[in-house]
Amino acid sequence: MFVLVNLKTYPCDPVAVAEAVRDVDETTDARLAVAPAATHIERVAETGAETWAQHVDPIDHGSNTGHALAEHVADAGAVGTLINHSERRLKLADIDGTVRAAQRADLETIVCANNPAQIGAAAALGPDAVAVEPPELIGTGTPVSQADPDVVEDAVAAAADVDPDVSVLCGAGISTGDDVVAAGDLGAGGVLLASGVAKADDPKAALEDLVAPL
Amino acid sequence: MFVLVNLKTYPCDPVAVAEAVRDVDETTDARLAVAPAATHIERVAETGAETWAQHVDPIDHGSNTGHALAEHVADAGAVGTLINHSERRLKLADIDGTVRAAQRADLETIVCANNPAQIGAAAALGPDAVAVEPPELIGTGTPVSQADPDVVEDAVAAAADVDPDVSVLCGAGISTGDDVVAAGDLGAGGVLLASGVAKADDPKAALEDLVAPL
Amino acid sequence: MFVLVNLKTYPCDPVAVAEAVRDVDETTDARLAVAPAATHIERVAETGAETWAQHVDPIDHGSNTGHALAEHVADAGAVGTLINHSERRLKLADIDGTVRAAQRADLETIVCANNPAQIGAAAALGPDAVAVEPPELIGTGTPVSQADPDVVEDAVAAAADVDPDVSVLCGAGISTGDDVVAAGDLGAGGVLLASGVAKADDPKAALEDLVAPL
Amino acid sequence: MFVLVNLKTYPCDPVAVAEAVRDVDETTDARLAVAPAATHIERVAETGAETWAQHVDPIDHGSNTGHALAEHVADAGAVGTLINHSERRLKLADIDGTVRAAQRADLETIVCANNPAQIGAAAALGPDAVAVEPPELIGTGTPVSQADPDVVEDAVAAAADVDPDVSVLCGAGISTGDDVVAAGDLGAGGVLLASGVAKADDPKAALEDLVAPL
Repeated sequence: MFVLVNLKTYPCDPVAVAEAVRDVDETTDARLAVAPAATHIERVAETGAETWAQHVDPIDHGSNTGHALAEHVADAGAVGTLINHSERRLKLADIDGTVRAAQRADLETIVCANNPAQIGAAAALGPDAVAVEPPELIGTGTPVSQADPDVVEDAVAAAADVDPDVSVLCGAGISTGDDVVAAGDLGAGGVLLASGVAKADDPKAALEDLVAPL
Repeated sequence: MFVLVNLKTYPCDPVAVAEAVRDVDETTDARLAVAPAATHIERVAETGAETWAQHVDPIDHGSNTGHALAEHVADAGAVGTLINHSERRLKLADIDGTVRAAQRADLETIVCANNPAQIGAAAALGPDAVAVEPPELIGTGTPVSQADPDVVEDAVAAAADVDPDVSVLCGAGISTGDDVVAAGDLGAGGVLLASGVAKADDPKAALEDLVAPL
Repeated sequence: MFVLVNLKTYPCDPVAVAEAVRDVDETTDARLAVAPAATHIERVAETGAETWAQHVDPIDHGSNTGHALAEHVADAGAVGTLINHSERRLKLADIDGTVRAAQRADLETIVCANNPAQIGAAAALGPDAVAVEPPELIGTGTPVSQADPDVVEDAVAAAADVDPDVSVLCGAGISTGDDVVAAGDLGAGGVLLASGVAKADDPKAALEDLVAPL
Repeated sequence: MFVLVNLKTYPCDPVAVAEAVRDVDETTDARLAVAPAATHIERVAETGAETWAQHVDPIDHGSNTGHALAEHVADAGAVGTLINHSERRLKLADIDGTVRAAQRADLETIVCANNPAQIGAAAALGPDAVAVEPPELIGTGTPVSQADPDVVEDAVAAAADVDPDVSVLCGAGISTGDDVVAAGDLGAGGVLLASGVAKADDPKAALEDLVAPL
């Protein structure tokens, strides 16, 4: 299982969380990574934790003030990027352009989407993975596997119909190790986490609890 | 073949073009329709021409000032709507929401997109049709079948891979009857036209020329 | 006082509300108008009620699929347009462009904004009027004059500092005639209304109650 | 004069340009600064050059994946931020929100806009400075003072009318020291530069030439 901890713009210490991600990663078969804000990518990557960007723009080098360039993110140490997160929704043409920009810079790609139909659409753009984020579960603490297990199974089926090489992540409603196991049982290849780790008093302990049942 | 004449915000008489669409439709096996601006839908539909909206928003009845409601468009006489036209690009989640809104109001749907990858994505959302609009051809007068026939064939293949029930239209680079025939030969089920008819001195003659080779 | 009834995309009969606006307008010194959806402008204007658009785009005649052209709206019978309503927020450059487009088509303009600072900014663009819509009051039923009278007075002062010719409307928290009177006492030259009239069982009675204290 | 070098996403070495900015700043009465991409702010600030962000979002700490938080930018070493650059246009409400977010983090603010009317609007939001960027001059190499000196004088007048404490920068059409002097003569308190320095073979020499006539 792939476990990606999204730090959003939470009031946390990104380096401390990254060190926890790095340390716990060495104790488990799961693959752990952290997605800090753009300004923190370089410092986070220097910890040795696998580092992802939260967003990249569908641009090339040039006149793009205030945009995130895939090459900048990669040079700073990121190995992948989230695309179209529910808090940063993009136009279809820009998701496509961002997948191309990320591939150009050798970044892995996870395209987020709301429901199985959109997951099929996202998979058709050829990313490495897609993440299903049912809007009704985002930030609720209700595990998707408990609230609506069909949405994960349907997303897995929708992606497989379009491109069986695209992995499906569960992008909302994950806070415990049991949730991670349940997501895997439904066919997910990984999970996106956020506040459960990023806002924990002890991020390392929170991660250890998460991977314990894996 | 389906021939949809998009009036955009051209300085034309929408009723005169609609009457030409209606009259020429009766003379051909092709299916002709016209897409006027929202303010003109009712008057255009009253001509008896098949009428489409240029855009609908992913909303329901409610607090949505300045948005286009599918039910309003349908009540005014439209039978379908363009979605995500290159001049009105939408977020992926909003294309999905707009397809649902249009279906709720019994409107047919054509989702536009730039290239075969995006056409696959659009087809995954379950519209009635998709339209491929290569950005490099929009407004150039160069027929897509001549400039880049692969893009139409690849779009047809991409849509068929995802959902064989989704028709593919050629949405740029069509100005003559030969272009329409060529698009059909490449697998397209129809074409989107604009200035060639809307800005013609004699829209009826322009349409007659277009459908003559069909 | 100017009283503009915004029909949004409410499930109401736009012609029935327009007839109520027209009839009550003849009984009062207040100026009454109605803002229907784009598809309804022509039918609403034909009632004889003063008709406004809910939105216009910063465009000219041309390749603008799915956009609202000022000339189309004016030709359909509208005499003015809302701009930057809280449900249709625009970029600063597009508010400016829309004010110019509306002026080109002889439409009156009301630019909406959230707070006194933004009201000053909106007034600097030279519209006929601005409307202050404190986000915390929109749709609450709490009259702005009771919840936060300072915001209206501050908005009136901010607009007057920048351009004393720009009228200030109160764009949220108005549902009774007393609210309208209170808004006028705070310096507002009018009010924006919505559900209180549009969703009333008897729109004419609702309007009569509203203008009774004026 | 304030001279801000915007690195956009140009293929330049941000640290090398920053060192040039730092070194030339010590030789002149002009104030020099550099605006790198978000991922480079920390490394650029470590050179000792005055560092600005290219963009900040109107957000606080929280669930804002893929957004630029003012506090992150300030902690990384930036002392100010561009807002609403022509390549990153914002909604009016978001310009206002971004000015507030920047002020919360003690960042200086420059709000960009197209023309004198928008400059007046930007000034009404209370930033430290505004920058006028006539769209027809962006990236042309034609100095604004030569092509259209009125736009700078009118922008200075428009800002002064609204708030005399807001400085006006010239944000397009500057490439030589004479252009900087001419902008100052028209009332500008500074200039935004980009490719002339960022893409120069020798950024330090380019900057020395620019400040020589000051």
